[in-house]
Amino acid sequence: MNKQVLFKSRPEGLPTEATFEFIETPEARPRDGEISRRTIYLSVDPAMRGRMNRGKSYVAPMEPGQLMVGSTVSQVIESKHPDYKAGDFIFGSDGWQTHAVGDTKGLRKLDPKQAPISYSLGVLGLPGLTAYVALLDIGKPKPGETVVISAAAGAVGSIAGQIARIKGCHAVGIAGSDEKCDFVTRELRLDACVNYRKQDLVAALKAACPNGVDVYFDNVGGPVLEAVLKIINRSARIPLVGLISQYNEAKLPPGPNLGSILVNRAMIQGMIVFDHFHRMPDFLRDVSQWLRSGEIKAPEDIIEGLDNAPSALIGLFRGENVGKRIVQISEDPTR
Amino acid sequence: MNKQVLFKSRPEGLPTEATFEFIETPEARPRDGEISRRTIYLSVDPAMRGRMNRGKSYVAPMEPGQLMVGSTVSQVIESKHPDYKAGDFIFGSDGWQTHAVGDTKGLRKLDPKQAPISYSLGVLGLPGLTAYVALLDIGKPKPGETVVISAAAGAVGSIAGQIARIKGCHAVGIAGSDEKCDFVTRELRLDACVNYRKQDLVAALKAACPNGVDVYFDNVGGPVLEAVLKIINRSARIPLVGLISQYNEAKLPPGPNLGSILVNRAMIQGMIVFDHFHRMPDFLRDVSQWLRSGEIKAPEDIIEGLDNAPSALIGLFRGENVGKRIVQISEDPTR
Repeated sequence: MNKQVLFKSRPEGLPTEATFEFIETPEARPRDGEISRRTIYLSVDPAMRGRMNRGKSYVAPMEPGQLMVGSTVSQVIESKHPDYKAGDFIFGSDGWQTHAVGDTKGLRKLDPKQAPISYSLGVLGLPGLTAYVALLDIGKPKPGETVVISAAAGAVGSIAGQIARIKGCHAVGIAGSDEKCDFVTRELRLDACVNYRKQDLVAALKAACPNGVDVYFDNVGGPVLEAVLKIINRSARIPLVGLISQYNEAKLPPGPNLGSILVNRAMIQGMIVFDHFHRMPDFLRDVSQWLRSGEIKAPEDIIEGLDNAPSALIGLFRGENVGKRIVQISEDPTR
Repeated sequence: MNKQVLFKSRPEGLPTEATFEFIETPEARPRDGEISRRTIYLSVDPAMRGRMNRGKSYVAPMEPGQLMVGSTVSQVIESKHPDYKAGDFIFGSDGWQTHAVGDTKGLRKLDPKQAPISYSLGVLGLPGLTAYVALLDIGKPKPGETVVISAAAGAVGSIAGQIARIKGCHAVGIAGSDEKCDFVTRELRLDACVNYRKQDLVAALKAACPNGVDVYFDNVGGPVLEAVLKIINRSARIPLVGLISQYNEAKLPPGPNLGSILVNRAMIQGMIVFDHFHRMPDFLRDVSQWLRSGEIKAPEDIIEGLDNAPSALIGLFRGENVGKRIVQISEDPTR
């Protein structure tokens, strides 16, 4: 049987267990040109919350009754396609289910000798590409400049912060607990990290950024963005990659006063990774090399079992994760 | 005697007559290398309000007791400098006074045969350069795109809107009265103009911008920016040139929710004209030519008499002006 998690009803505020419905369907066999596969890992991402709302966003909203969407790493069970054989590992978008069958559109083969297959959901996947492009192409940090990264222990922030360090910047994280801040400075080796829940944020940021802020890599929006705007330098660049602070708000809150943007001739640029696939070759080349040399670590936060996928997603908004959170559905024979 | 207007005390909210003090001082004579001049025109600008506040901005704040600062057009009375002679017209920053004496630093000679001398305070001065650079270098409009301009009847907006029209864009103004909107569409020949005080702004903007908004030239911030953000297109560019809606607020109001910036991969860029003097030659060449060919009109709103300078400035924040507001202090022999 194929176990699936459906999107049952649009949540108000934070998703709950009632947002999801578990069903079982018979496992299908591939037809000509198709392959069947079992899901090993599925990705949970903050942006999934946006798709639960009605109305236009940068991707179509999910409709109640639909399979929960998401990126996946799978292993081929049976292939009726010449390019794939049983046992192959693949990256795809099979969503929240234990098995899938269908054509090979949008699939990509993974070589476990190159990198752990789960990395295709994180450091070598869309979160990593987001970090790479938003930091380098929009933030354009110069050596010696100060780069601040919010959600610095998260899937995207943890990569962005390390790239800022590699590029010779004074890299300062912002995270939601002392444990995360320890992780950011000790494991990811950023220069400093500020716990936004505890401290006078503006004062703590000033202390961590004695030369002000040249690039603010923002995953969160809200009061953290407001605080950083108070200490940005002239010509600061702010790649706006996420607004996790407001994804569960029924009514959109106001944003920061823009006086600092005007006075400092600063720039805020919204960024969605789908526009930047042309950078994939450069990204894979650079980040693969940084992984091999040990300059980048790829923290993962693996939750076991499809049954726990809903709470794994909900937990993202509570800031539970350190590193890229993924859900393991079945055995990974490469580990 | 030299009549001067001093900055007397920092206002809370809108400046009042009590913000200013009129004094008379003896008229001085130039020493070697200096010239004396009488002020013909002085510029009043919304940005002057910012200089009345304490604290860091992009220029130093004024201190109580100081002469009110501002750009001026003057005529030389007596010259002890080889490059200037009595009768010459000059652009400078002599502030709010009937006469000035001093060295020639920062002065520029004006040729009344080339253009009305008052234009150096508006269409051929900083407001025009602001419009030119913010629209073309930051907004980067392409022919056929929709450009929306707030404060479209104002000193900067009136020029920006006309340049958008010249560049083949669908140019839509926003202004605060039906009279101004008539002016924007009939005199400045923009495609449409929306009166933000009267209409359901989002609905009116949608009607005026059937293809959405690609460039929003913003002089005002506040609820108008919020409304435009609801109908921006993907990859929209927003040069942020002014925030007149908040210049008189004691406490900075929140800004717009940034969700639309993220989802639409839009860009907000603060712009201060002082960074862009290297564009002056291109600007003067293009705008002078557009003035000669009649493609650009240079509306002016001339208030008579130094005594009326305070109310002329205050009136800017009430939206009294159509075109560049200047104060005429003494006779312009070229008109």
